[in-house]
Amino acid sequence: MKFARFENSGNISYGIVEDGEILEIDSNPIMGSYNKTGNSFSESDVKILCPNPNPSKSLCLALNYGSHLADRDAPTRPEPFYKTSTALIGPGDAIKIHPEAGLVACESELVAIIGKVTKNVSENDALDYVFGYTCGNDVSAREWQGGDDADNQWWRAKSADTFGPLGPYIITDIDPQNVGIKGFVNGVEGQSCHSSEMIFSTAKAISFISKYATLLPGDMIWTGTSGKTPPINPGDTVRIEIENVGILENPVEAA
Amino acid sequence: MKFARFENSGNISYGIVEDGEILEIDSNPIMGSYNKTGNSFSESDVKILCPNPNPSKSLCLALNYGSHLADRDAPTRPEPFYKTSTALIGPGDAIKIHPEAGLVACESELVAIIGKVTKNVSENDALDYVFGYTCGNDVSAREWQGGDDADNQWWRAKSADTFGPLGPYIITDIDPQNVGIKGFVNGVEGQSCHSSEMIFSTAKAISFISKYATLLPGDMIWTGTSGKTPPINPGDTVRIEIENVGILENPVEAA
Repeated sequence: MKFARFENSGNISYGIVEDGEILEIDSNPIMGSYNKTGNSFSESDVKILCPNPNPSKSLCLALNYGSHLADRDAPTRPEPFYKTSTALIGPGDAIKIHPEAGLVACESELVAIIGKVTKNVSENDALDYVFGYTCGNDVSAREWQGGDDADNQWWRAKSADTFGPLGPYIITDIDPQNVGIKGFVNGVEGQSCHSSEMIFSTAKAISFISKYATLLPGDMIWTGTSGKTPPINPGDTVRIEIENVGILENPVEAA
Repeated sequence: MKFARFENSGNISYGIVEDGEILEIDSNPIMGSYNKTGNSFSESDVKILCPNPNPSKSLCLALNYGSHLADRDAPTRPEPFYKTSTALIGPGDAIKIHPEAGLVACESELVAIIGKVTKNVSENDALDYVFGYTCGNDVSAREWQGGDDADNQWWRAKSADTFGPLGPYIITDIDPQNVGIKGFVNGVEGQSCHSSEMIFSTAKAISFISKYATLLPGDMIWTGTSGKTPPINPGDTVRIEIENVGILENPVEAA
């Protein structure tokens, strides 16, 4: 199934997307059961919003593709960090680059959205706790993240306002280890990988994290990025494409 | 004023605390206006809960007291990190130490709770955006935090389940730079400082953070810890005492 969160004439709702039509439902499907309201909208008449704007947490995997390691050692266990919810924006919303941010890069990622309370789950069971998947851009300010004048922890490198584009849809029925993921800046391909190349699979990461920190419905696992990450600057347009999941496009502006 | 969140016969409410009585109010006071319901309870008849269990984020200041630096350089700007909301527990709730956590320490801290949307505020105006203050224990697993086998980022060192005791009350009318803060393990004083010793004041930290990441009502700034931080082990009882703010006590158990 394919879900969207959308705005129509100032009202924000959730819906099921089928053939360009949105069938409105009466509650956030990530949180449990819902019913169709009977209202439907053409996708082109509404604004598609960030599909999951207020998770209790997002854990993003650092160094989860061999092609992204460069001269760094491969991790021996999943290496998550937090991206905070005030960084999240929706499709079409502007990534705003702070004047002090220095070099900022985009990172195309498959994002898993948890659907049940998840604590101490096995790798075998972990995907049963996922509600669905969407596209994420783990926007990163490299000088805040590393180097001589970096912050102690990645609090603004990864979570400055607007550094978390997400969407457009939540898809419930893909294999997270079997999709192609690409990133484009101004239409030029800058990243390309297949999710089978992850060092720690989505299931392994969820199982590992759930031993230490309970995951709640709506919490997100960002599964890491590949290769060299293209720099972005005001005036650019960034596009993340994930096979069978969606296309997430955002303009870049100066903050 | 002094606010509490409490449970009485399975119902969770907020209230104003006066002379051992809790005057129930009809909504979370951090989020805006409220009215008294007319119900009142004796403080000793209810369970006092974590006063702010679901912030969109908590930013905690690393290295914010000279006495805590040891051989580390003093920071040149506030150095926040995220403590995630699933780590938060209330007074009396058990800190549960994961079998793989290694050395775990307590950190007594004054915590500011934001009351308004806070973006780009000046140091002079910053405290106008604070709703109130409470006691926090920034429980920290040192082997996950630093050393040869540390995690890349402090995702579980600071945010494993139960690593964020908070409470018991929210006090609205203190000067955050003029309180004594102490930490005790099994009644033995292990930390003692005065909040005037902070390297970056509460106002300075809020102003700095708000340039990059918007703070929302309920978001928290943990203002850092002092001196050497006492280790804690299953069977211990930890107590944080902050002058004019409160006493936060938690038992320690094996997870």
